[in-house]
Amino acid sequence: MTEYFDNKIRVFAPATVANVACGFDSLGFAINQPGDIVEAVLQDEPGVRISEITGENGRLPTEPEKNTAGVAVLALLEHLEETRGIEMSLHKRMPLGSGLGSSAASSVAALFAANELLGRPLKKGEMLPFAMKAEASACGSPHADNVAPGLLGGFALIRSYDPLDVVSIEYPENLCCTVLHPHIELRTEDSRRILRKHIKLQDAVIQWSNLAGLIAGLAKSDFDLISRSLNDIIFEPVRSLLIPGFDNVKGAAIEAGALGCSISGSGPSVFALSTTMDKAYEVGAAMKEAFSELQLDSDIYVSAVNKKGPRVLQPEEDPVQPDL
Amino acid sequence: MTEYFDNKIRVFAPATVANVACGFDSLGFAINQPGDIVEAVLQDEPGVRISEITGENGRLPTEPEKNTAGVAVLALLEHLEETRGIEMSLHKRMPLGSGLGSSAASSVAALFAANELLGRPLKKGEMLPFAMKAEASACGSPHADNVAPGLLGGFALIRSYDPLDVVSIEYPENLCCTVLHPHIELRTEDSRRILRKHIKLQDAVIQWSNLAGLIAGLAKSDFDLISRSLNDIIFEPVRSLLIPGFDNVKGAAIEAGALGCSISGSGPSVFALSTTMDKAYEVGAAMKEAFSELQLDSDIYVSAVNKKGPRVLQPEEDPVQPDL
Repeated sequence: MTEYFDNKIRVFAPATVANVACGFDSLGFAINQPGDIVEAVLQDEPGVRISEITGENGRLPTEPEKNTAGVAVLALLEHLEETRGIEMSLHKRMPLGSGLGSSAASSVAALFAANELLGRPLKKGEMLPFAMKAEASACGSPHADNVAPGLLGGFALIRSYDPLDVVSIEYPENLCCTVLHPHIELRTEDSRRILRKHIKLQDAVIQWSNLAGLIAGLAKSDFDLISRSLNDIIFEPVRSLLIPGFDNVKGAAIEAGALGCSISGSGPSVFALSTTMDKAYEVGAAMKEAFSELQLDSDIYVSAVNKKGPRVLQPEEDPVQPDL
Repeated sequence: MTEYFDNKIRVFAPATVANVACGFDSLGFAINQPGDIVEAVLQDEPGVRISEITGENGRLPTEPEKNTAGVAVLALLEHLEETRGIEMSLHKRMPLGSGLGSSAASSVAALFAANELLGRPLKKGEMLPFAMKAEASACGSPHADNVAPGLLGGFALIRSYDPLDVVSIEYPENLCCTVLHPHIELRTEDSRRILRKHIKLQDAVIQWSNLAGLIAGLAKSDFDLISRSLNDIIFEPVRSLLIPGFDNVKGAAIEAGALGCSISGSGPSVFALSTTMDKAYEVGAAMKEAFSELQLDSDIYVSAVNKKGPRVLQPEEDPVQPDL
């Protein structure tokens, strides 16, 4: 059994669902699982060292400058003008390229762990720029729609990037999420490349009217309004072409009683929202069954919306386990 | 002094501010003034007769089929399969082509009056299709972003047209509006024609992020968030070219402490939101002064957000008066 001292910490950071159907590049929320785990130790020497990475078959580099967790903590240490350093091991408990904010979960877990070990000099929101820097290193642009909900928990709206303005959005306590992670991989770049740079004005009006409806529905816990608003008429029709069986999975989720169902981030994971955990499990079973018709494997994760972002884990605690 | 019997009624319907900066073709709200007044009398004979129109220099036709108030009530009577009819006089207390929902105010006042005289067979929301039919007759398309807030009061989101889904949006009680109506006229068609049919995806993301912020700010009475969100980066830069002095008027409003300022509907009226009536008057004075530098005249209307839409007036009551 691992022993824990004040200079050592184990942190979980949640997966996140960006876009949320109608909120492309604007809205995201965190879920209680899956996610990543970082174990970090405070060091007297400056800098960042990644001693180990488990999961994802050793595909991630341990050089801190090439790893989102490393990039984020290096930026934090530089900002704080720290003479101490951080050694960490990263346990990838969620797949890369899944559309669930895998890189964000790593950097958020690492940042939170480092900040705790350093005596909590920053609030969670103040770490956002360092997590965004890590996102930029991973995918070329400093997106915040995974790292913001990942750090803050709940639903986060990126109202503006210049200046950065992240708004926490109220939502109903009992909202639950089902995620189907198909065992295929999509690169965010590919999923972005197929999008057009211009859209029809009349489509944009429909999209932003749905987003406005979703925000209003979340704010007043109007599940019916949330359900009516969970439509993406611009991106889902294009991106879903890269996700085999998408229409069947979505149809099965709705049929099973989900409030709505769409692509998580840039895919290939698919999320559905429900009003109870029981319903979310039923929806998950229906989604998995629909997807299995393709002879492809998948994992289903069911959880409530994550309220607080990253958290310190007990020594043997393991919060990540596929439900189906 | 006019005598009032059960078969006669006098109704006020409010002006409305559509678009609300970032909610193009999607969001609108009603204000306590200006607006239109309809006097209506129940008749034993079927059909609609418009006996008189005051205001706007007799520019509006009294043939019911050519007048939004007439079209709306004809549609209502037909829907109800009424054997009785309505005679009405319409008092235009707000300018045509002002961007304040002038045609909507007339049809909403007429519908509400007729429905009351007929024993209130419909709820306010149920009259929306008839008001939309009148809008279609006036401007070619059945827009709801003036008639919906006009009928229901407050802020109304048109989440969807097909099927029609109008959502009342929560807002802070003390929100006040200043309207500058420049004495120039813009036809909605002209103001729509200069808009492009396609927009940049990156602009759309900024626009819908602001709309999401506005809805969230209204719902949680966060005036600072409302203020930060009141931006229109797509339409205002184009449409404001048709409004002389717009940049100066907006600058003056912000300088005087308004939460935000943009074009009302398709213009030329300009609206600003404030947190108190006192502030809204100060903002109005600053806007009027900025506009007067062009040697053009203008009216300023200051009022709280209208809560309930149309209402029955007392015999001599006159709710419309420019404040400056």
